[in-house]
Amino acid sequence: MQHSRRYLTMNSLPDLDSIQEAARRIRPYAHRTPVVTCAGLDDMWNAELYFKCENFQKVGAFKFRGACNAVFSLSAGKASRGVGTHSSGNHAAALALAAQLRGIRSFIVMPKNASEVKVAAVSGYGAEIFFCEPSEDGRERTMAEVLEKTGATFIHPFDNPLVIAGQGTAAVELLEEAPGLDVVLAPVGGGGLLSGTALAVAGLSTDTRVIGAEPEGADDAYRSLQEGRIIPSVNPQTVADGLLTSLGQNTFAIIREHVEQIVTVSEEAIIAGMRHVWERMKIVIEPSAAVPVGALLEGKIDLSGQRVGVILSGGNADLDKLPWISN
Amino acid sequence: MQHSRRYLTMNSLPDLDSIQEAARRIRPYAHRTPVVTCAGLDDMWNAELYFKCENFQKVGAFKFRGACNAVFSLSAGKASRGVGTHSSGNHAAALALAAQLRGIRSFIVMPKNASEVKVAAVSGYGAEIFFCEPSEDGRERTMAEVLEKTGATFIHPFDNPLVIAGQGTAAVELLEEAPGLDVVLAPVGGGGLLSGTALAVAGLSTDTRVIGAEPEGADDAYRSLQEGRIIPSVNPQTVADGLLTSLGQNTFAIIREHVEQIVTVSEEAIIAGMRHVWERMKIVIEPSAAVPVGALLEGKIDLSGQRVGVILSGGNADLDKLPWISN
Repeated sequence: MQHSRRYLTMNSLPDLDSIQEAARRIRPYAHRTPVVTCAGLDDMWNAELYFKCENFQKVGAFKFRGACNAVFSLSAGKASRGVGTHSSGNHAAALALAAQLRGIRSFIVMPKNASEVKVAAVSGYGAEIFFCEPSEDGRERTMAEVLEKTGATFIHPFDNPLVIAGQGTAAVELLEEAPGLDVVLAPVGGGGLLSGTALAVAGLSTDTRVIGAEPEGADDAYRSLQEGRIIPSVNPQTVADGLLTSLGQNTFAIIREHVEQIVTVSEEAIIAGMRHVWERMKIVIEPSAAVPVGALLEGKIDLSGQRVGVILSGGNADLDKLPWISN
Repeated sequence: MQHSRRYLTMNSLPDLDSIQEAARRIRPYAHRTPVVTCAGLDDMWNAELYFKCENFQKVGAFKFRGACNAVFSLSAGKASRGVGTHSSGNHAAALALAAQLRGIRSFIVMPKNASEVKVAAVSGYGAEIFFCEPSEDGRERTMAEVLEKTGATFIHPFDNPLVIAGQGTAAVELLEEAPGLDVVLAPVGGGGLLSGTALAVAGLSTDTRVIGAEPEGADDAYRSLQEGRIIPSVNPQTVADGLLTSLGQNTFAIIREHVEQIVTVSEEAIIAGMRHVWERMKIVIEPSAAVPVGALLEGKIDLSGQRVGVILSGGNADLDKLPWISN
């Protein structure tokens, strides 16, 4: 029974049930983040905007939801051997904290040129860090060695169905607080957040459209949707450093079915969107979180009179290097 | 009746009743700002911290409360001639917006070297701006001329009893959401926020201590309390540019009676406190709001096991010039 349930959740695409199960599972650990509004921005765009503040989530990003769902879904036996992933960003911190909360080990593979700040953040949550050559090949090899040696379970940053289901819980909460939205916007990198959001919205609010926002300089998801197959991200260039990855098989399948469109956003608009939110809403968001706001600034989406949900994905901005200040 | 009430509220010190009256008066216009907590900071200081987020207040600062109370307390006749003040900062924006909401004119005297950003913010709320020589003398002269010409009512930035009463409403809300605090911290410049806070706390929660936090480089309130008379601020030097002013007669009288102590904070600790809040709480606060946080970082107040309220006074930081980035 335990086995068959795991088989199902691990190897088939998630659905609304798995998102609702995830919501129950992570409730004791994750923050229910606030949904905030801003009269100034509403006036500017003649719309009602509802911002879901995942920058206030644990570890400062929505990634904690998916990591937490994956970690707390493991059987006791599997959990005892720990979890592992490769990431230098929010997923690594999220997985490390989720493991710490379950009282199990976490093994994180990071490129040896990762910034000290990122290494410190992840090891601060008790992770054991393994450095690799900064290449896909080096990363895969080191990850395989670590998993082989430890017996840890690999938790993919976005294509794992439990991770996708966990990310979808943010949209569930958003729809509870702002029902009847016309559209929900989320940024897209690997697609974990966008696919989870799209599944949740499709299941809970059939009239609500879901739109992904992607940097022009990393527009692989946009092109993948156009061409009907995954176009890998090649040498992406964007300030939104959480959105460099290509889509996965699972996230692509879900996005293809449930996302109305993906809009691309210029670097200037991403930076302006980030600054707008800091300045007017007085909250810190990271560049990746500003991509949907940039899409609104560029007029890529007709907002007039609409009720719009925006998922602000995270707040881990580099405070020493703001993109509007030239150093 | 109308006259005698105005006489009382304008010329005697405010009390808990005037604060509660202010709370009712400003309710339709001011935000009830959230009180937020941060588990990371609680762990770091072994305390329970409750942050009252006036950075989310209208115009980005607590100043809106006092200005709003003063503007909506005016008789119809007086209101019809408008309100005026001299300020280049948050009080000017607050007064302009409050006047706009009441549908009356506002006249703001600003030094002719005020930054374009500040001028734009104030005129964006519909104020009529008069530039003066950047000296106390020039400011007073221009202000007197404007009041003479317009018949507008002068609203002092902090020593007006209605302004003090309005500022006290933040502490009323804080105590409603976090009852039984051991101590409440607020920054002190002219003393409007600190005196209003102290009055509210004295009236509502007699066992709660109130402590003011002041920059070392602008420690006139600290010295005034030590010497028992107002020591004017001379050539203050601090990044906390909202706290340059000396105390007024009214704020000093209240602070002397109801504030337990004023602690001074180094520039380094103010900047570190500001960064701490941005980084860990993901909210934007201005340097003046970081002064109480700096006091905590410097260990100026024994926190251990205490329930501590902190009023984060505002969020209007200059995003082009962060104090931890050298340009």
